[in-house]
Amino acid sequence: MTSVSIIGAGNMGTAIATIAATGGAAVQLLAQDAEKTAAAAATAGASVASGVAGDALTGDIVILALPYPAVAGVLAQYAGQLDGKVIVDITNPLDFATFDSLVVPAEGSAAQVIAETVPGARVLKAFNTTFAATLATAAVNGVAPTTVLVAGDDAAAKDALINVITAGGVSAVDAGALKRARELEALGFLQLTLAAGETIGWTGGFALVK
Amino acid sequence: MTSVSIIGAGNMGTAIATIAATGGAAVQLLAQDAEKTAAAAATAGASVASGVAGDALTGDIVILALPYPAVAGVLAQYAGQLDGKVIVDITNPLDFATFDSLVVPAEGSAAQVIAETVPGARVLKAFNTTFAATLATAAVNGVAPTTVLVAGDDAAAKDALINVITAGGVSAVDAGALKRARELEALGFLQLTLAAGETIGWTGGFALVK
Repeated sequence: MTSVSIIGAGNMGTAIATIAATGGAAVQLLAQDAEKTAAAAATAGASVASGVAGDALTGDIVILALPYPAVAGVLAQYAGQLDGKVIVDITNPLDFATFDSLVVPAEGSAAQVIAETVPGARVLKAFNTTFAATLATAAVNGVAPTTVLVAGDDAAAKDALINVITAGGVSAVDAGALKRARELEALGFLQLTLAAGETIGWTGGFALVK
Repeated sequence: MTSVSIIGAGNMGTAIATIAATGGAAVQLLAQDAEKTAAAAATAGASVASGVAGDALTGDIVILALPYPAVAGVLAQYAGQLDGKVIVDITNPLDFATFDSLVVPAEGSAAQVIAETVPGARVLKAFNTTFAATLATAAVNGVAPTTVLVAGDDAAAKDALINVITAGGVSAVDAGALKRARELEALGFLQLTLAAGETIGWTGGFALVK
């Protein structure tokens, strides 16, 4: 059975936990507040275990469902425990003060920064182009199916994550090498600016049509 | 009446000419080969004028429906004739040898390079995230309406182009300042890699759902 640890129990972490549990994965949900995390885990599924950030990771796939500024602290907290894991970065590393640029190198990505920080892990970029509501309903405002875009350099890791997502009822596609995280983060950034400006709603966004 | 000159009579130029003519704009279509251009103009609409690249521009809006490597030559050809015009850049400036990166600065865009080359013009980025087939049918593979994303620093220029497109039956939205061309080009690049890898078809792509 695929095992997934999700760190972060906000709307994204909870939506991802629900998909993973629906698909039959063993899911552990961790965050700062034990009580709120337990409530989120119960929402995600009866089988979902909960705990606090810092607890030993039970998942082979570790999803960082955190805002980008919180990632470095969690990686430090789990230093030495992430080798061999598949790490999934879902962040959109915006400068939230200006909403006008990213805080990662223009030719790189948050995912590549994380991969350099944890060289013993296999890093994937995923979920940053799908708002939580579109994950929860598996549809982009009722118009088209939600598709999770997954980029990474390790084919087996990508396959494992794509299987977790599709087993949970949401489409997922291979979006290329980890280098494509630059483009995924640009897409997520653009989508956020369109939602913040009310050109689209938080139930909408870019739907991938085949 | 809004007047539009389109340089380039490939499938993108022809699709854009059709939209502009349908919406009632005065359209001039220019390309290298007079005979082929005349045929494309006739396809786009009975009122569409045709000529060869180098002819005097009749449009206030000049759409460069060209591959990125051809843009510099056309800008040189029209040196001194583009001041005061609205220039629309539709390119996806890929390294076509590798299909793995862009040939413009990572923090910038082709549109920003063009704006620096022609400081007397108002430059917009548009059409680079919509495949020709989705413009011709106004739908992304029949699933969702096609939306043209338009970025630029001049609000009046953006409004004028958006009006041309919507009058022609295709949705268009303001995607922000010209700085957002970086993200539009990343989106166009990602979409091209997904189509080249057959994850999506050339009638599909990213549909913007509100």
